[in-house]
Amino acid sequence: MTDLRKTVERFWAAAEARDWDAFAGTLAEDVVYTLPQTRETITGRERYVQFNREYPGDWHLRVERIVAEPGQVVTWLHFTVGLDEMYAISFFTGTDSGRIASITDFWPEPYEPPAGRDHLTERS
Amino acid sequence: MTDLRKTVERFWAAAEARDWDAFAGTLAEDVVYTLPQTRETITGRERYVQFNREYPGDWHLRVERIVAEPGQVVTWLHFTVGLDEMYAISFFTGTDSGRIASITDFWPEPYEPPAGRDHLTERS
Repeated sequence: MTDLRKTVERFWAAAEARDWDAFAGTLAEDVVYTLPQTRETITGRERYVQFNREYPGDWHLRVERIVAEPGQVVTWLHFTVGLDEMYAISFFTGTDSGRIASITDFWPEPYEPPAGRDHLTERS
Repeated sequence: MTDLRKTVERFWAAAEARDWDAFAGTLAEDVVYTLPQTRETITGRERYVQFNREYPGDWHLRVERIVAEPGQVVTWLHFTVGLDEMYAISFFTGTDSGRIASITDFWPEPYEPPAGRDHLTERS
């Protein structure tokens, strides 16, 4: 079985390099992309490559952490667009041939801590 | 080596059951909990158990997905408090003895999709 971890590493390297042919090569033809926060879905390699190619801004990414088991991978990215910094967490599943079958992305935003717990926490 | 995946499964089952002794038993004494979205950190088993025990609301959790490799685990939870539904994504690392050494939580919130991409997406 092809190693899905290596496929996902190539996927993010190709995105950062805007190498859309290499990017498409990591994807199953019927790949499904899901954003639970917006309830959006994109189906199919062609549309998903277009979505990424058209994504606005001079964005850059760095993989902070990757956790993999056979057929499943998770990445935690540090993502920048100009001075904005974000995290992205992505869950991948793979096909038998080691391509990416599904991607589910989460984009958590900063928020203020609720009151009443600063006796337990430190803040950086 | 003790299986960190099993430890994390016991951690979430104990939290859901409010079994704080079993919950504490999954943690290293110097466990570090980090919330990057609020920049909060909690250090030490005692404080971290107290933080969870005092967490307000009649919350309930269900593990949607778990991805594990030796020494690292990620969970994706479906979390409810009354009628509110949330996702939580947690990255775990383990000690040599299979306890939880660190936890990093992300709580992504729903948002509206940006304009200009509905030619590619479907919305549920």
